[in-house]
Amino acid sequence: MHAETCADLPDIIDIQLARARIGDQTRNTPVLNDPRLDEELGCMLYCKCENLQQTGSFKFRGASNAILRLRENDIEGDVATHSSGNHGAALALAANLDGRRAHVVMPDDSAPMKIDAVRRYGGAVHFCAPTQQSREAELEKLVAEGKVPVHPYDHADIIAGQGTAALELFLQEPTLELVITPLGGGGLVSGTAIMAQAHGIQVFAVEPEGAADTVASLQQGKRVESWEPDTIADGLRALVGIRNFAVIQKDVRQVFAVSDADICRAMSLFWETTRMTIEPSSATVIAAILNHPEIFLGKKVGAIISGGNIDPTSWIKLTGQFRQLDH
Amino acid sequence: MHAETCADLPDIIDIQLARARIGDQTRNTPVLNDPRLDEELGCMLYCKCENLQQTGSFKFRGASNAILRLRENDIEGDVATHSSGNHGAALALAANLDGRRAHVVMPDDSAPMKIDAVRRYGGAVHFCAPTQQSREAELEKLVAEGKVPVHPYDHADIIAGQGTAALELFLQEPTLELVITPLGGGGLVSGTAIMAQAHGIQVFAVEPEGAADTVASLQQGKRVESWEPDTIADGLRALVGIRNFAVIQKDVRQVFAVSDADICRAMSLFWETTRMTIEPSSATVIAAILNHPEIFLGKKVGAIISGGNIDPTSWIKLTGQFRQLDH
Repeated sequence: MHAETCADLPDIIDIQLARARIGDQTRNTPVLNDPRLDEELGCMLYCKCENLQQTGSFKFRGASNAILRLRENDIEGDVATHSSGNHGAALALAANLDGRRAHVVMPDDSAPMKIDAVRRYGGAVHFCAPTQQSREAELEKLVAEGKVPVHPYDHADIIAGQGTAALELFLQEPTLELVITPLGGGGLVSGTAIMAQAHGIQVFAVEPEGAADTVASLQQGKRVESWEPDTIADGLRALVGIRNFAVIQKDVRQVFAVSDADICRAMSLFWETTRMTIEPSSATVIAAILNHPEIFLGKKVGAIISGGNIDPTSWIKLTGQFRQLDH
Repeated sequence: MHAETCADLPDIIDIQLARARIGDQTRNTPVLNDPRLDEELGCMLYCKCENLQQTGSFKFRGASNAILRLRENDIEGDVATHSSGNHGAALALAANLDGRRAHVVMPDDSAPMKIDAVRRYGGAVHFCAPTQQSREAELEKLVAEGKVPVHPYDHADIIAGQGTAALELFLQEPTLELVITPLGGGGLVSGTAIMAQAHGIQVFAVEPEGAADTVASLQQGKRVESWEPDTIADGLRALVGIRNFAVIQKDVRQVFAVSDADICRAMSLFWETTRMTIEPSSATVIAAILNHPEIFLGKKVGAIISGGNIDPTSWIKLTGQFRQLDH
């Protein structure tokens, strides 16, 4: 029943069904609390480590759910999407596990590591210019050839899949007061908000200043339809989706914007305390908590650490730590 | 009762008591399986991620247990030890949490990051020449001043504490056939072997070739008493302890030696598949599995990933990956 009503926006039951559907493929990632990180942040932070998810990001949850839903509905054939990286790799693996191939339209300035990952998981890469128009045009070509489109975030099955991270987090840490996630296209935050709403937990989201289209959209009361992204957070450059924006307007308490410099400092701090190198997109949540003690101070906060797909050299360049590399 | 009989070697009950004692301070670290890593290794590997333990290594388990046992026995005062790093940081934090200070004798060529960590957790660093004799002489001075010595591995409470990693692993993955750990002084492997013996699980251990004193000791039927270590695995340079060697002789099925080159390749492979940067000592277990398909092929194997305390620059230098850092 819910599988049918899922066409527009999933509800909590759809997220629970998604969890049952993808449970064999995805990891119930650990939730980590670090007392030294808490000291720096002034709150009790419970990090849902999606950097340790299959393919290195939460994106595998949505991709796995979308592909398994195609299978349930007897929709055969290769799939196509556009992605700066993490959704592409995730869809490549999910398709591969289901005996399909994923065709991924990627901006030609994508991180080499992320291009490699799509190919390693069996996906085909189609390059395009790094604009929203070019992405969409290239994707339309693939769809015209008969490939099944799987939108990276503005898609009910993707949102339901991403919501399973919060579902697990709320089971692992049942007494959270707030939850915070990064925000690019809005797949993660909309899935999280649907779960959090049902649990009475306040939801916050974070964009990089250089891709703060959602902050602008909320101010204007309608979705901004173009934005030239300029940020190191390569996973958060997309425009917020239509469905996603609807959920954010309704259920997200506040969207913060953080600077690239804040993101870099947060990446450093996260490594110093937890020994995990996380990608810039993930570190936005740490940066926002540091910037907003008036909201987080003393609270029990859940954070979704969205991905770990950064190579150590890029990490060093961004954080400015340990630069004394002699060749 | 067991607390009393624990003077020489702990048994499984002592490890269970240790788990209860340290449970509030330590993390029940996640166990991670990665299908791509399995493909490369030819076995099903369940990694107990002690790189995500407090202070970044399993050493905090033993240190926490040793300090809490002092407290139970009303032994007050500062503690002293020698350590190339991870035990020092672990003891510094455990002592700090109990209102004491740890004095840590460290070789003057210790990794700067590990020196910083001891201080950050509130410990005092005392440098010495990088030889076993110099370490012990410096430690004796501290003990003569009245500090309570806590040996890094040849100590029943430390062994019981380290055994709690295997205790948790066997609960998290109840059907393991084999378990493998790195081997330096032998605290981790002896605690693991005591647990594994009770579960009928075969135990393997791995030394770097440049610090393979235990392999030599087993061949000669008695413990080698000096060795000039030469390996990148800075956590495994110590000589095996007396108690530890006794357990290894009795209960460890085989000790492998792996080259530094093998270790570097294993560090790369681990990152490529799991996105975690682990220190060389941890990667020995991955290297040994790659080198010994005759033992591990098709088996369900537990591995203790001992620590994650390596800075990204050192990781890049050792693995040779992503060297294109421009300043």
